[in-house]
Amino acid sequence: MTVDLEIICVGNELLIGKTLNTNAFWMGKQATTLGANVKRITVVQDIVEEIAKVIREAVKRNPQFIVTSGGLGPTFDDKTLEGVATAFNCKLEVNQKALAMVKEKYIEYTKKRNLPQGEMTLARVKMATLPEKTEPIQNPVGTAPAVRLDLNGTVLFALPGVPSEMEAIFTQTIEPLLKEAVGDRLFCEKSMFLKDIMESQLAPLIDVVMAANVGVYIKSHPLGAENKPHIEIHLTTAGKHEDKPEEMLTKAMRQLASLVEENGGKAVAEK
Amino acid sequence: MTVDLEIICVGNELLIGKTLNTNAFWMGKQATTLGANVKRITVVQDIVEEIAKVIREAVKRNPQFIVTSGGLGPTFDDKTLEGVATAFNCKLEVNQKALAMVKEKYIEYTKKRNLPQGEMTLARVKMATLPEKTEPIQNPVGTAPAVRLDLNGTVLFALPGVPSEMEAIFTQTIEPLLKEAVGDRLFCEKSMFLKDIMESQLAPLIDVVMAANVGVYIKSHPLGAENKPHIEIHLTTAGKHEDKPEEMLTKAMRQLASLVEENGGKAVAEK
Repeated sequence: MTVDLEIICVGNELLIGKTLNTNAFWMGKQATTLGANVKRITVVQDIVEEIAKVIREAVKRNPQFIVTSGGLGPTFDDKTLEGVATAFNCKLEVNQKALAMVKEKYIEYTKKRNLPQGEMTLARVKMATLPEKTEPIQNPVGTAPAVRLDLNGTVLFALPGVPSEMEAIFTQTIEPLLKEAVGDRLFCEKSMFLKDIMESQLAPLIDVVMAANVGVYIKSHPLGAENKPHIEIHLTTAGKHEDKPEEMLTKAMRQLASLVEENGGKAVAEK
Repeated sequence: MTVDLEIICVGNELLIGKTLNTNAFWMGKQATTLGANVKRITVVQDIVEEIAKVIREAVKRNPQFIVTSGGLGPTFDDKTLEGVATAFNCKLEVNQKALAMVKEKYIEYTKKRNLPQGEMTLARVKMATLPEKTEPIQNPVGTAPAVRLDLNGTVLFALPGVPSEMEAIFTQTIEPLLKEAVGDRLFCEKSMFLKDIMESQLAPLIDVVMAANVGVYIKSHPLGAENKPHIEIHLTTAGKHEDKPEEMLTKAMRQLASLVEENGGKAVAEK
């Protein structure tokens, strides 16, 4: 079964070229490696209505999973949960489980530094204020809990934007669910590098090899280097163990390498 | 006037965690620095119907500019122009200006290498096959021309995905248009780094400084380092020259630094 997943990243910093979106890259790689089909990545501003719109649009496309990252912290610009509440027209309320998680983190932090243990300020309670019907998920690295919301056919996760926190929660909570949903499906990839051939000469050769190897997807990536191998060939497939996807890729790669050499090019294993 | 811009990146490699989306980062930074408002980044698979849907959705939001990158090359998976044609229900046709551009590049390439000058194969003609009513734009670095399409209130540019090609065309063709559309509007940013303060303590201080400095946007970014400054404060604003946006930021930054120090934290200029 194909398991579709969409990624939504919330944060002006990703739109203004302040922060490179390594979170989407990391999640895309993890989900793909586990056999899921990453359909779309959307990056949106810290504006409640925009976040709500993007989430509603994603839900309409009906993927099994939606994962958001960013916007769960204590500051005014952390608006993802308000966006989720707006998207589904539900209330935000202090969640007692989430509150206990935030308190515990905060006590740990102040103890460690011998600081007086201050009160649960508004900013701290904000991190425990969740849309109704959502479940908080313990953040093993930082303070803000993540959130799970089960919709009709779609599970939505809202993760923090700090990479170490996002990665820990993705690994602990989302990976097992993805594995179960995907079942026996392996994703495989291989690369080879070409020189002395133009992409336009290569195009019909790829068509031939793809027609002869159904299920193998072959992309050429120009590397922009003139005198070194200047095209990367990236072969991917996903299939059951018994279909031996790894062998399928090896076979297709060898066929393409022969055709490239017949056409005056050279195929090498490395850049 | 606010000039909205949306970025659409086409390519499975960006969704499966093969390629980090440095194109969106680069374009986001350029457009923001020129004073434009980057509203959204969408990354989409190499599927004609998906590309068409994403473009149609973006056009409905009515930004002044939409810039796509990727999917203009000669191989089967380069589907952006088919997506554009599908989005606006128009035909694809060989564009004579584009064909001349592709031919010229190809003759140059073969001459340089003393190769026989082969025919204009289907793959080469594909790069010159554009949706009706679009204008080809010379690619100063690679072969595939970029494309401009003027819609009602929105100008759409389709750029290649190879970074050096995308950057060259963006700089030559899109930057002057953005500058003209934006007019007298400067984007400014400043950073300072904090230690010995939690983000939840900082949140109300940011609220105070933002209320006192209308137009200044202050984001805190946890850096995840325990013993070094662990929060970056990023201040941004955009305004006319005469509003002295640079000075606005300096003033707000000094106010926030004082409040941080009053609350036991330390503000420093560098990480």
